[in-house]
Amino acid sequence: MSHIELGNSLPGIRSLVQYRPETGRHLYALVRELLAGESSLSKAERELIAAFVSNRNGCRFCTKSHASAARILFGSQPAIVDEVLESGESKRLHPRINALLGIAGKVQASGKAVKPEDIDKARALGATDLEIHDTVLIAAVFCLFNRYVDGLGTSLPEDEAAFVEMGHRMISNEYKFQPPQTT
Amino acid sequence: MSHIELGNSLPGIRSLVQYRPETGRHLYALVRELLAGESSLSKAERELIAAFVSNRNGCRFCTKSHASAARILFGSQPAIVDEVLESGESKRLHPRINALLGIAGKVQASGKAVKPEDIDKARALGATDLEIHDTVLIAAVFCLFNRYVDGLGTSLPEDEAAFVEMGHRMISNEYKFQPPQTT
Repeated sequence: MSHIELGNSLPGIRSLVQYRPETGRHLYALVRELLAGESSLSKAERELIAAFVSNRNGCRFCTKSHASAARILFGSQPAIVDEVLESGESKRLHPRINALLGIAGKVQASGKAVKPEDIDKARALGATDLEIHDTVLIAAVFCLFNRYVDGLGTSLPEDEAAFVEMGHRMISNEYKFQPPQTT
Repeated sequence: MSHIELGNSLPGIRSLVQYRPETGRHLYALVRELLAGESSLSKAERELIAAFVSNRNGCRFCTKSHASAARILFGSQPAIVDEVLESGESKRLHPRINALLGIAGKVQASGKAVKPEDIDKARALGATDLEIHDTVLIAAVFCLFNRYVDGLGTSLPEDEAAFVEMGHRMISNEYKFQPPQTT
């Protein structure tokens, strides 16, 4: 049961943005731009960063939903997601993506943990400044979402199939905000 | 020097939102709603939560700028801000605000650190569900900003007077996003 009365029975972040659409619309617009907007990082890679950081923060709702989206987007190689959740990298990813995951892992702990040598390493492997920027921001955004979802004790679907369905919906809806229906 | 080439010499978050206005506009819209929008928490109290969480995260830019705004807004009692940065509470605040600061401090560590008894305590002291919600979200949002600002190594003004000026500007501008000027 959630810590406060949210007035709906939706799971995780969905319950919160319906409860407070004035802030929810901006949160969705931000994630829509970051995870579904124009980028030289693939949508699979961006969902992977989100799932990885959420797992480090121990947020089950965000980990399971974004891991589900990432598994779908990686197509024939869904095991990449499990490898990254387990060890923070995968030999099947381009080394530049593993370096960006390394930066995301540091951001999860603290912004100040990111050192010039982490940036140099990612750059040497081909990462652009914009990719480094977006990686830091995605990691930071999920440090927000994970705390928001767990800090208000939102509900978590028990059925694994619900997360598969959620992954598909996240990919097709591209985080478009649906305001609450007034009755 | 910032970790990536931002193309401007602005300090802290201001450099980042100018570098990437597509995400910056949503970040500012979110903070504008949370810190300057309608609320039964005063603007001083909300800036105080932002400064407190930023200080716990060791983010000097966000701590100094939001502490400056809070000191101005608390008028004749600016020492409240220093007491909260020092100990997480102040006898000069309503006990309900101290309880909300306690929740914000837990969110800074982890969303899962917030327990039903923390919520019960704040409620018993008069906090509404919406105040609890906004406190959790403000704390989570600054866990984002602190990591974003420090994770990309943005610059920090050395002059204390710059933060006083910044506090005044934050209060008068109410976090209105100014898109980059195209030349």
